Amino acid sequence: MPTEVKALAAPDSSAQFSRTEITRRDPGPDEVLIDIKYAGICHSDIHTARGEWGPTLYPLVPGHEIAGVISQVGTNVRKHQVGDRVGVGCFVDSCGQCAPCLAGEENYCADHTVWTYNDRGRDGEPTRGGYSQAITVRENYVLRIPDSIPLDRAAPLLCAGITPYSPLVRHGAGPGKHVAIIGMGGLGHMGVQLAHALGAEVSVLSRSLAKREDGLALGADNYYAASDPATAGRLAGAFDLIVSTVSADMDVDAYVNLLALNGTLVFVGLPPDRQSFSIMPLCSGRRSIAGSNIGGIRATQEMLDLCAEKGIAAKVEVITADDVTATYDRVVAGAVRYRAVIDISTL
Amino acid sequence: MPTEVKALAAPDSSAQFSRTEITRRDPGPDEVLIDIKYAGICHSDIHTARGEWGPTLYPLVPGHEIAGVISQVGTNVRKHQVGDRVGVGCFVDSCGQCAPCLAGEENYCADHTVWTYNDRGRDGEPTRGGYSQAITVRENYVLRIPDSIPLDRAAPLLCAGITPYSPLVRHGAGPGKHVAIIGMGGLGHMGVQLAHALGAEVSVLSRSLAKREDGLALGADNYYAASDPATAGRLAGAFDLIVSTVSADMDVDAYVNLLALNGTLVFVGLPPDRQSFSIMPLCSGRRSIAGSNIGGIRATQEMLDLCAEKGIAAKVEVITADDVTATYDRVVAGAVRYRAVIDISTL
Repeated sequence: MPTEVKALAAPDSSAQFSRTEITRRDPGPDEVLIDIKYAGICHSDIHTARGEWGPTLYPLVPGHEIAGVISQVGTNVRKHQVGDRVGVGCFVDSCGQCAPCLAGEENYCADHTVWTYNDRGRDGEPTRGGYSQAITVRENYVLRIPDSIPLDRAAPLLCAGITPYSPLVRHGAGPGKHVAIIGMGGLGHMGVQLAHALGAEVSVLSRSLAKREDGLALGADNYYAASDPATAGRLAGAFDLIVSTVSADMDVDAYVNLLALNGTLVFVGLPPDRQSFSIMPLCSGRRSIAGSNIGGIRATQEMLDLCAEKGIAAKVEVITADDVTATYDRVVAGAVRYRAVIDISTL
Repeated sequence: MPTEVKALAAPDSSAQFSRTEITRRDPGPDEVLIDIKYAGICHSDIHTARGEWGPTLYPLVPGHEIAGVISQVGTNVRKHQVGDRVGVGCFVDSCGQCAPCLAGEENYCADHTVWTYNDRGRDGEPTRGGYSQAITVRENYVLRIPDSIPLDRAAPLLCAGITPYSPLVRHGAGPGKHVAIIGMGGLGHMGVQLAHALGAEVSVLSRSLAKREDGLALGADNYYAASDPATAGRLAGAFDLIVSTVSADMDVDAYVNLLALNGTLVFVGLPPDRQSFSIMPLCSGRRSIAGSNIGGIRATQEMLDLCAEKGIAAKVEVITADDVTATYDRVVAGAVRYRAVIDISTL
């Protein structure tokens, strides 16, 4: 029998959340039902809830940084069992048969990646995310959370962890490589930890030095104020890889000039407007500007296992269900250190 | 005794060429003196002669697509001998000791790549290019031109050949890859031939279909008018690699949308103004925008040898020294098919 569970929904783009009830289907043969314990608040939740990213299916139940415990499994489920600590990230389904899916990159499914919320599943029903007490998901889209990572600190890894991890690995962050992370927020503070865990020399390029101590404690070797005019000259050509986690307009050329020969500036934050760049600095140093969008299930599991091995996780503020509406403003203001996570037991 | 030779010089940014005499030094122990037979006219020559790319050292003798025959060798020269058919490209010196130089990428020398003209050599003297009867160059910066390639058709390979060749090889153009070349000019017509020679499926994206027959004859599998509104929809996600050889403003997003997952748009043409792009299409397909600047000596030799093996070369219009000033306007108008080459015997 389908399960009625409590959830937080935004009725419209005002994004004033209130409690509601939603229905979760019984797990099919290859599905599991998860009791959600914590759900991270991602900037994407805010953009979507506020209708800033095109059409939103209201009422919206956001949340794609989900950590919980399995409460039921379908008859064919082999990878997970009742009681397992698990996570769900930005997507809950994909075709499973295209080249990207077969390569473990379901996030680039050639047919259709089914996003965890504000999308429609195979059954045609709107998908609803982690701001709720439970969720039913196909087992192949469920991650194992290692025992050593507390569930509240694990939840943000499902988006804020895998998002910087993907380009770090793809572009060879490791010993001998100089990596800069632009922005010291939810994604940025994970980018610093993960780049350090992979063995790279890590610098933070932040608006100010306000979070410098935290950055160094998380593994940064250097911390620079991007607003300091001396930074540009001192760091010209310094980085093999720069990962930008911010979603504001930026001086792309200024960052390209900080790239070494063959260096890459990767966007994982999404400035909404078009940005401009000059061709010459790309050519003169054979540099690239690239984008990256979360990561596949295999890479996400690898990232979770690396976090466990290295003893790292998100730094979180645990909030109650009643705090969500107000917390959105605090996230936008950059006042949260470094990820707000909803304690679902307060729903 | 230094050699006095005739040359064509632009006195100022009017770029009205006239005959002059310049001095070429005797070859040092590791240098050769080359009798220049042909010099290609590159769009860069025009930008520089007209003062469009920052300060120009007038009087300017341009030319970095040089083909000729060795007439003298220094005492330590081992790679070349008198009578050898050789070429010189965009640079004539570099430090030889930095990481890029040691990797055969002297064009990205960390110290200073000495450009063939409008630069200063180790001796502090202005460098002067191929619009002249002879040039003295260190042997390591001189290319062998295979016997099967006529010198007039070889000259443009030194810039218009290596420029598209580098990103084609770097980004894996070959069997099973779909490559598009934007622009069907000097660089573009070589890009088509080289991508085809490497085994890729090749499409041309040109302003119109005016050069379609030539494009197909040079090895293109498909030829599209970029101005046709149907092109964008039909080709969405089609290409693993797009090489842009044009130097006009462009709709970057429109081309990014033609890239497949992991595809790269590489600029080798240099639009002078900043271009704008959206972040989302980069992220959603893990795409890149990159730049590339000519290529090193090793890659240039490899490209020349490939051209000989495949029986390809530049399609040229041979002009006289008296035609150069007028030809500049024809090059800018896109009226030359596909490279103008100065017959230096007419100097």
